Amino acid sequence: MSRIAVVGCGAVGRSVVDLAGDHGHDVVAVADSQGAAVDPAGLETRAVLERKAADGAVGDAAPADALAAPYDVLVEATPTTLGDAEPGFSHVARALSRDRHVVLANKGPVAERYGDVRELEAASRGSVLFEATVGGAIPVLGTIDDYGPERITAARGVLNGTANFVLTRMAAEGLDYEHVLAEAQDMGVAEADPSFDVEGTDAALKCVILANVLACGEREFTLDDATVEGITRVPGSALDLAAEDGRTVRLVGEATADEVRVGPRLVPDTSPLAVSGTRNVVQVETAHADGIDLSGRGAGGPETATAVLADVGRLPPLD
Amino acid sequence: MSRIAVVGCGAVGRSVVDLAGDHGHDVVAVADSQGAAVDPAGLETRAVLERKAADGAVGDAAPADALAAPYDVLVEATPTTLGDAEPGFSHVARALSRDRHVVLANKGPVAERYGDVRELEAASRGSVLFEATVGGAIPVLGTIDDYGPERITAARGVLNGTANFVLTRMAAEGLDYEHVLAEAQDMGVAEADPSFDVEGTDAALKCVILANVLACGEREFTLDDATVEGITRVPGSALDLAAEDGRTVRLVGEATADEVRVGPRLVPDTSPLAVSGTRNVVQVETAHADGIDLSGRGAGGPETATAVLADVGRLPPLD
Repeated sequence: MSRIAVVGCGAVGRSVVDLAGDHGHDVVAVADSQGAAVDPAGLETRAVLERKAADGAVGDAAPADALAAPYDVLVEATPTTLGDAEPGFSHVARALSRDRHVVLANKGPVAERYGDVRELEAASRGSVLFEATVGGAIPVLGTIDDYGPERITAARGVLNGTANFVLTRMAAEGLDYEHVLAEAQDMGVAEADPSFDVEGTDAALKCVILANVLACGEREFTLDDATVEGITRVPGSALDLAAEDGRTVRLVGEATADEVRVGPRLVPDTSPLAVSGTRNVVQVETAHADGIDLSGRGAGGPETATAVLADVGRLPPLD
Repeated sequence: MSRIAVVGCGAVGRSVVDLAGDHGHDVVAVADSQGAAVDPAGLETRAVLERKAADGAVGDAAPADALAAPYDVLVEATPTTLGDAEPGFSHVARALSRDRHVVLANKGPVAERYGDVRELEAASRGSVLFEATVGGAIPVLGTIDDYGPERITAARGVLNGTANFVLTRMAAEGLDYEHVLAEAQDMGVAEADPSFDVEGTDAALKCVILANVLACGEREFTLDDATVEGITRVPGSALDLAAEDGRTVRLVGEATADEVRVGPRLVPDTSPLAVSGTRNVVQVETAHADGIDLSGRGAGGPETATAVLADVGRLPPLD
């Protein structure tokens, strides 16, 4: 149905390449930081992924060749960067200047330069969607879009699986933060440098994106506008005390059209916010239909790629 | 954005009329069983609703005049009927024959005559959407559509608020079915004739619709294909026993491309299926992104109208 170019070949990018055919799309270009594979007639995706696994590079073309390929939709899946959100932002700009659609898995452009992205989109026949940037496989932005962002009063949720895994294990085992973090690092759930997750930055970026959507252009948010506290100072004793009271602690992010806040919050054990392990949840408050709770896997290659490909399917045909 | 005709003026139809303007749409016709109000330039919806409240009739035109009005989208919100699904089915057929879109709040046409509806849709430039027929405000069908029904392996959930209210009260108060049902009838949560809800028929119709979607045309389901057991024979003692074991009983419906089953099931207290009161929940099992849980209000005028208007927004422009 669409010709896709995938820029960025980490777990998400590779899963998009892997699953695109199953969704009826042709992959015409794949780029990593080293090189690119391009075929306007559609790449043999299995061969591209095998080469990436064997050589660490997807192909012999220059990475920039992927941006020039004859795609309908550019999937931007390079790592999230802060500040100028480069090189992701330039990739978005290039695609929109060619009147092509963009689907983002990279949070940077819509968290740090939302106004710039929307301005370029307004001047383009292409559109930008970014379901995968908030809550992985959970259909958060699609739901907000369908129900109308101007009729959503707030969104809050548990949006970082690593932090939630740590809090869940601390509560279940009565262990301290440092102990559980080391365990999570051994299991590969936490990165060697876990600060992006445990300091709340990742959850805050997702809430900034939600606030940008809910503000409908009335106001622009970046990470600097968020009030953020992580979980590194949550003592095990706080979880014990909460448990005695039928509650637990979760790293909760909240976004409205006016504010972004992320921090540890006491939530009842029976609250939808009390998700366990690496699962994420988002509560969308609507003007006329009360709250809608959406939960699922917030990270992972195939999970996030599923959201990317849902976006690809939502885009209107280009003329 | 769209010109809407609303046929059926119960709680859902009236809420659609009430909220359409807020979504940017014009209501050009409204019909109840007695009459209709039609204005190709857009009705004064407040006046129509006030007249309906005062007189019991929306206007002096014939009901059939609404079906002939110059609308883009017909919202079919007459009561669900079984078997031939009339008069809803004929309303759908008429709109599609005029190359217009249809949004259903009425379950009948897609539960009992899904193949006929899809056949008429294939011959029309109009499309048929029916988010409001399953789980009220919960974005179940939109999510399945975005992720691709062929990549959804199953959907299960608690889809009848009345039955769930009765089970929740039975468990919380230790009361018998008959006692709680009488209370629910006093509160207006249960109908004078509650059989449609407590016998599982309503939940089964929703699961039949889900199965029709998941089957992607490979097979057609009607209520006759569903294995259905209600909650009328669940003894209070069963809920007590379940509670001792950290579990409860819920009326759970399950749909796959091959089967529809509805009946009381034991579920853990911590399961997403253990929703309380009139809330509904649906678990969507995906091929590549694990399970996604969606919960919210499954009934109510504004809630269901929100789903109807989300569908209206998803429809492509008519040429």
